[in-house]
Amino acid sequence: MFYLIGIGLGDAKDITVKGLEVVKSSKRVYLEAYTSILTVGKEALESFYGREVILADRDMVEQASDELMEGADTEDISFLVVGDPLGATTHTDLILRAVEKNIPYFVIHNASIMNAIGCCGLQLYNYGETVSIVFWTEDWQPESFYDKILVNRERGMHTLCLLDIKMKEQTIENLMKGRPIYEPPRFLSASQAAQQLLDIVERRDKDQKTDADLTPSSICVAVARVGASDQKISTATLKEMAALDMGPPLHSMVIPGHMHPLEKQMLRLFAASDQVKNDLASEDER
Amino acid sequence: MFYLIGIGLGDAKDITVKGLEVVKSSKRVYLEAYTSILTVGKEALESFYGREVILADRDMVEQASDELMEGADTEDISFLVVGDPLGATTHTDLILRAVEKNIPYFVIHNASIMNAIGCCGLQLYNYGETVSIVFWTEDWQPESFYDKILVNRERGMHTLCLLDIKMKEQTIENLMKGRPIYEPPRFLSASQAAQQLLDIVERRDKDQKTDADLTPSSICVAVARVGASDQKISTATLKEMAALDMGPPLHSMVIPGHMHPLEKQMLRLFAASDQVKNDLASEDER
Repeated sequence: MFYLIGIGLGDAKDITVKGLEVVKSSKRVYLEAYTSILTVGKEALESFYGREVILADRDMVEQASDELMEGADTEDISFLVVGDPLGATTHTDLILRAVEKNIPYFVIHNASIMNAIGCCGLQLYNYGETVSIVFWTEDWQPESFYDKILVNRERGMHTLCLLDIKMKEQTIENLMKGRPIYEPPRFLSASQAAQQLLDIVERRDKDQKTDADLTPSSICVAVARVGASDQKISTATLKEMAALDMGPPLHSMVIPGHMHPLEKQMLRLFAASDQVKNDLASEDER
Repeated sequence: MFYLIGIGLGDAKDITVKGLEVVKSSKRVYLEAYTSILTVGKEALESFYGREVILADRDMVEQASDELMEGADTEDISFLVVGDPLGATTHTDLILRAVEKNIPYFVIHNASIMNAIGCCGLQLYNYGETVSIVFWTEDWQPESFYDKILVNRERGMHTLCLLDIKMKEQTIENLMKGRPIYEPPRFLSASQAAQQLLDIVERRDKDQKTDADLTPSSICVAVARVGASDQKISTATLKEMAALDMGPPLHSMVIPGHMHPLEKQMLRLFAASDQVKNDLASEDER
């Protein structure tokens, strides 16, 4: 059996009991290591599982699936994914390849940021389309995520913003010379994402604005290391957020749409300033 | 500490290792028993945890939170929720009450249908707003979920439809006489939901139609008992779905929007008929 196993978001102990049993009895255990990270490393997983864990990078997963699934028709192979295997990043292509090879598969689900974002208090069924905010470069500064946020806000919906992750990047020079030297991984922080949104807001300042448009004082929510013991949630204005240090990765951000009183009350728990606390107060508390 | 612990969707072993450790060392363990069910009962949980589990019904959670959280300032109390504690059903009100009482809280996340629906192969970030389809009665047949599905489809987005659950219902007679006698729980099936959608389609048949409108041959996806060993996924036309038996609860349904080739390929794995298989075939396979 080829098992796709979600290992959750926090640390080694966020795997399910069912998942752990499969890992312990598998012939080989792979860890998908290019779309997300846990707050703990491969070594912590190996020590907790009592098993060797093989890092699977994008090339291996996309091009060497024969190797990955070898023997899975008669033995158990585990493929671990941070969060849920079919969550923010989808591994349906692996399922399709398993089916093609007549290899049975089973998915062991877990929390992913797509549902654990509920921790900030905004209700999951009030979210619209999820967006990705990418690292801007000097000459590539897409704004499409902002337009999607507006579409959601026009309908009163919240937007979960997944923040860019750059793993195994190469400099142009190393790429040209074919040297397998990679840059350290980079993770877009909530403050960087807020700054990019502010830049867009400023650029569009001359356009005709609607109520859905963001301003520097729009409320946003940042979450960091969800599920870990040092998880942090902050509610701030966009301007405040651009200067806020949420600590080590991974970060995500939410741009609220219309908020119900209970949602406002929850966001107040995480207010980064008195101004935000006041903005989120119910009418009779002001 | 007051722990809100997601126990996932399948069976007793879908709790995380972290969650199980907390359950084992908690003073009291509650199971929220009115918004969802596992495929296994309370007894299976008790035997797996080696602990007594107290069923918490809606009255207890909403009105007796003092009792629920008693002692949580000095000892650990566990509150178990099927899926994720802040998933499809939110328990943020409990968090707010804990904070008010100066009781520390911690959320242990898990898979919920809001992310595990990824199992059908439609990508989570292509979903719009989630809707709830309720049991119709003779004189109460709301259609608002259909309009929300259309709004999503107009933008090419998929719609996750959560299907109604009726727990602890009373007949009018028992209610009037104050007798604490409850009807057996009821769960809206995917086929009932499909039939209600077909009824709406028929009623609106005279209206001006758009491409987003559903027809009896629109493709839909049903999932049943996600995460359990007898999980079932079926892709069918709306008309076929209305006659399809997905087995025991819980069921959920997805109405796809625009589908990418990889998404179509995944849905084909679960096709209930040759017609659906053909509808989902890529151009060069036809």
